[in-house]
Amino acid sequence: MKEYNFTGGMPDPESFPVDGLLEAAQRILPQLGKTLVRYPGDLGYIGLREVAVRRFKDREGVAISADRISITSGSMQGVGLILQTFLKPKDIVITEEFSYSGTLWALRHFQAEIVGIPTDKDGMIIDELEAKLKRLASDGNIPKMIYTIDTNQNPTGANLSLDRRKRMLELAKEYRIIIFEDNCYADIHFDGYKPPQSIFAFDDSKSTVYVESFSKIIGPGMRLGWVSAPDPYLGRILENRIDGGTSAFSAMILAEYLRENLWKHVEETNKIVKSKRDAVIQALEENMGDIASWTQPTGGLFIWIKISEETDTHKLQKLGDEKKIRFSRGQAFHSGNQDVKYIRLAYAFPPIEDIPEAIGLLAQCVRESQVSPTRVSFAAAPHA
Amino acid sequence: MKEYNFTGGMPDPESFPVDGLLEAAQRILPQLGKTLVRYPGDLGYIGLREVAVRRFKDREGVAISADRISITSGSMQGVGLILQTFLKPKDIVITEEFSYSGTLWALRHFQAEIVGIPTDKDGMIIDELEAKLKRLASDGNIPKMIYTIDTNQNPTGANLSLDRRKRMLELAKEYRIIIFEDNCYADIHFDGYKPPQSIFAFDDSKSTVYVESFSKIIGPGMRLGWVSAPDPYLGRILENRIDGGTSAFSAMILAEYLRENLWKHVEETNKIVKSKRDAVIQALEENMGDIASWTQPTGGLFIWIKISEETDTHKLQKLGDEKKIRFSRGQAFHSGNQDVKYIRLAYAFPPIEDIPEAIGLLAQCVRESQVSPTRVSFAAAPHA
Repeated sequence: MKEYNFTGGMPDPESFPVDGLLEAAQRILPQLGKTLVRYPGDLGYIGLREVAVRRFKDREGVAISADRISITSGSMQGVGLILQTFLKPKDIVITEEFSYSGTLWALRHFQAEIVGIPTDKDGMIIDELEAKLKRLASDGNIPKMIYTIDTNQNPTGANLSLDRRKRMLELAKEYRIIIFEDNCYADIHFDGYKPPQSIFAFDDSKSTVYVESFSKIIGPGMRLGWVSAPDPYLGRILENRIDGGTSAFSAMILAEYLRENLWKHVEETNKIVKSKRDAVIQALEENMGDIASWTQPTGGLFIWIKISEETDTHKLQKLGDEKKIRFSRGQAFHSGNQDVKYIRLAYAFPPIEDIPEAIGLLAQCVRESQVSPTRVSFAAAPHA
Repeated sequence: MKEYNFTGGMPDPESFPVDGLLEAAQRILPQLGKTLVRYPGDLGYIGLREVAVRRFKDREGVAISADRISITSGSMQGVGLILQTFLKPKDIVITEEFSYSGTLWALRHFQAEIVGIPTDKDGMIIDELEAKLKRLASDGNIPKMIYTIDTNQNPTGANLSLDRRKRMLELAKEYRIIIFEDNCYADIHFDGYKPPQSIFAFDDSKSTVYVESFSKIIGPGMRLGWVSAPDPYLGRILENRIDGGTSAFSAMILAEYLRENLWKHVEETNKIVKSKRDAVIQALEENMGDIASWTQPTGGLFIWIKISEETDTHKLQKLGDEKKIRFSRGQAFHSGNQDVKYIRLAYAFPPIEDIPEAIGLLAQCVRESQVSPTRVSFAAAPHA
């Protein structure tokens, strides 16, 4: 029985640059391979930090120093280090109402109290954030951190508007809250849409800590991302690193590949990601228009699907497992861990030719998971 | 001015298998490269776990399951995860009196109370351990953990005898203390000496957690090692992993290389390491016999040198920096952070032809760092 995997934030396997990395290895290892008997150090291989600097500059229009970048095992290690550094049990952390399941897991691991703020198509609703901060402050409970995936959000695909980014920063300054900006979906966008500048790029108040990733444009198996933060935060974050640094072998070969191919690679992979998004949207329209509504993301790797309130989501998951159509239940992304009636499709991984059949099966599973036969119709997409 | 670097536990740069890894990459990436769009998971790339299983079996004579191995960023990430998992502030941890500076740093980071036990040429003196445990227990202060580098110890080069390993385990069982066995220098040995079996291999009481490394036989820039532990410890350790796993790209290529070349590679590198050890010992004999005594290690990467009690070690380090002869001060390895009159030479990294000149400079620095002109003579090696 064929498996259809829409679970993880993984890029298209056919886009993984096997030949490019092999050629890069053949160029760089004879030159620098012997340096791999040294430790990479807390900041990591300088060549990949230089690629990160250029990528950031080209996208954000702002130069950061390679000395302020620490290469990590994907952006996830950065998430762990940042939370470990700043949070004590019971600290309040603001997130989008729906957010990355891995970060929510880590926040709970560090015993943070998560406060989710509602979002719309422009990301976190800042009026709601402001009202919540006011209420919390009046009780003496000022949050420690705002964690935001403000660009191509996981799972909603929303981009926080520039105006809202500025207002979020103003509020963070007013209440002296750290913004933790997770920009791991930077550069994955299409339809001519370009996300607003990152808060980290325009923040002159040193309120923002920041992670980025190479996983989503290359592959999570490389385990390469980076963290940056203003003084004294970066030093404090690195104090918690006990790993001898990140693979300089991976970093060296990837840097050599990206040195010449970064934007060409991103352009090519975005074309493929967009074509898969289109295929999923088309299949959803053909199969599920009467029982669900969904986002039409202009970037990132996820489609967020609101399903009928009458859905038994546990049954849905069980049916999905039986038919080997793998997706993620909405609950994993809910800041309050509620059994919300959503599912997330990570659409870049499965082969495009499998998508119509997969979504057909998904629609069957959703229909068979309704607790009452009444069909609920959906007038609007989740964020409209 | 030429630099002579004897500071870190780094292998010989010329032994780094550039060609072997390139050939391995050419074989394995076209086959499995596309799987690198997936996350490696907490256990990591199965191929490298299988190599780890075979390496352990060939050396220790005992089979462990690949499902009980988690690939980490060198053994250092394992050290961090294990300490983070088991230690609360004020917990007592037993170490050899002199131990690895990185672990001592991490123990202090987690606010452990370090209790060093004296050692001799056969490693930790178990009578001293037993007496210390008795005293601590009578005050209600049973240690949480015994951290031991029992094979080719860093910095002393000692190998804990098999009899002592058995007695250490008996004591750990009696007092219900976890043994943390750091076996990162496994397989680096020569002069026909083979270290005793690891405690982890013969422990049937599930008292031992264990790390191993590929850094010391290949290169720390790969960032590949592994951790194993009995139930329920391994699960608890992995709960603290927030990094998305270890580079499957590095692991895949290294595993493909080692699949065919493991013992051949180890044999070749051990020859080179031994020749450098011999060169350092010879140069020490020619230059420093009157002002120092030293170990003659049968394995590992370090020579541990006792210098005159009249040495101003800060002046010594300053003079070394001026002459660019880099070594490690003994204090970094002292469990009690005392300014002990020792230095550590990591001898595998510098080119063999530099060694006579480097040790000549070192001898000069030691002579110029004596606070009184009296020469202290050394009748015996530190462990004799």
